[in-house]
Amino acid sequence: MTSVNRVITVCVPSESARDEIAPVPDGVRMLVWDGKSPAPDGIEDTDFVLAGYMGAPDQMLAALPRVKVVQLMSAGFDVWLPHVPEDVVLCNGRGIHGRATAELAVTGILAIVRQLPKFVGEQAAHRWTQENSEDLDEKKVLVLGAGDIGGYIARALEVFGATITYVARTARDGVHAIDELPDLLPDADILAIAVPLNAQTRGLIDAAALAELPDGAIVANVARGPIIDTDALVAETSSGRLRAFLDVTDPEPLPADHPLWDIANVVITPHVGGGTHGWQRRAYRLVREQIERFAAGEQLINVVARD
Amino acid sequence: MTSVNRVITVCVPSESARDEIAPVPDGVRMLVWDGKSPAPDGIEDTDFVLAGYMGAPDQMLAALPRVKVVQLMSAGFDVWLPHVPEDVVLCNGRGIHGRATAELAVTGILAIVRQLPKFVGEQAAHRWTQENSEDLDEKKVLVLGAGDIGGYIARALEVFGATITYVARTARDGVHAIDELPDLLPDADILAIAVPLNAQTRGLIDAAALAELPDGAIVANVARGPIIDTDALVAETSSGRLRAFLDVTDPEPLPADHPLWDIANVVITPHVGGGTHGWQRRAYRLVREQIERFAAGEQLINVVARD
Repeated sequence: MTSVNRVITVCVPSESARDEIAPVPDGVRMLVWDGKSPAPDGIEDTDFVLAGYMGAPDQMLAALPRVKVVQLMSAGFDVWLPHVPEDVVLCNGRGIHGRATAELAVTGILAIVRQLPKFVGEQAAHRWTQENSEDLDEKKVLVLGAGDIGGYIARALEVFGATITYVARTARDGVHAIDELPDLLPDADILAIAVPLNAQTRGLIDAAALAELPDGAIVANVARGPIIDTDALVAETSSGRLRAFLDVTDPEPLPADHPLWDIANVVITPHVGGGTHGWQRRAYRLVREQIERFAAGEQLINVVARD
Repeated sequence: MTSVNRVITVCVPSESARDEIAPVPDGVRMLVWDGKSPAPDGIEDTDFVLAGYMGAPDQMLAALPRVKVVQLMSAGFDVWLPHVPEDVVLCNGRGIHGRATAELAVTGILAIVRQLPKFVGEQAAHRWTQENSEDLDEKKVLVLGAGDIGGYIARALEVFGATITYVARTARDGVHAIDELPDLLPDADILAIAVPLNAQTRGLIDAAALAELPDGAIVANVARGPIIDTDALVAETSSGRLRAFLDVTDPEPLPADHPLWDIANVVITPHVGGGTHGWQRRAYRLVREQIERFAAGEQLINVVARD
């Protein structure tokens, strides 16, 4: 346990969060505020805030004039980034949800490749209908995003013989730049989307990009709905040319009358990628470690890079 | 290409098999017989037979008095073993189907862990119903069978944080013996079955074994139906205590009026583990290599050990 010279004020969104994060270093004062209910005394002294899922970023930050660190529990930071001043460190929840999110992407991809929704229907009808399906052997997978989510997706699919190509914002060894996407899409049997939503990725997978994919390709999105042009995806999947697994949609939640629901080649889950029972345990472990680093004056992890 | 001193006669089950296996070494004569239709001239000279899925073992072997090698296309060899004389080498299709079979096991396990059948139903009803599910992180998986299928299952589940314990016929480094099963089952969140069916494994997962599993455990069987006592599994899953993914059943095919079909905690696929489009390509590559080894007098691979 590190001790600190001055009192550090940490604001967390619930009493259960406070209890789960404990123990914190000596000299760290914990306040509980969800960003919506009346703020407790001393909230204006907050140095480090754990942003829950409830408060609006602008209202919350207005109450925290001395905040130095905003820690999110999500991998995505698009909702917060525009509101966090340049001199405040924004940290995301990378690693909290990444593996579970990748796990859901692999679940959805495998379900489509191995026709699980069809067999669920056959089971309901008590029918033993044998039919050869595809498998991942020799499938070419384009992973958009070379962070932890993309890495876990790749490692799991490789076990079954798929070959992986990474695309990310910054080209580096083994990773292509996003502007190479038009050259890479025609060779992709599977496009797995695991990048943050930002100005560069919003609408990136539009009608032109989808048109580059070969017939029968699978688009899997566990990142953010607006990365894909929904109307273009509806057109390409309802025609039967492409298939899709979507844990995120645009709009979200998907309205009951949206055409995506009924497309035979589309499997939808309701944004549950990272929302598994284990996530809070992982989240509070990360936050405790971040508070210890902050109290000790060490470098934080998961710092969101500004453009 | 190896050349051989004497003519070797190879019998394959179809003309397409013959064409796909080609080229074979000089001096290898290929006959086509499926074990059911009238046998071609010279069938009694067969040295090496590729057994398809159609002929009955006893009838087929009676027509092949000089056969030295029986090559199967399946990983399972239980149907053939009792009929193949001791001095004839029996080779199975290990490696042809293994990865695809493991892939289906992982598909089924993930589908249950991430509630995919539920979400397929919600999609049909146009409902966006968010609910935390489990994930594989820290799950304990008991893999029954330390062959290629078990190995691929383990490698994929480990990517998502599961820990693996192997059990197989022969205890060795990192692998427990089958007689330790009663001590291992109480700690298994998931039991993945990937062993051959034989006298030791028939009925191995009976009512007593299932009773040792903790509440909520998942039983996944991609091996052979009779390894599990079906009545006991029906009892433990219909009560809601256990869950199951079954690609194989006993009886098989599962009759339309069987109680397994309607159990909410059971997902059934119709023995399609290894039956993917890629399997024939892999099968014919294996057979070509075995014929080359046989013609060159080299040691064959995939030889089934006799008890």
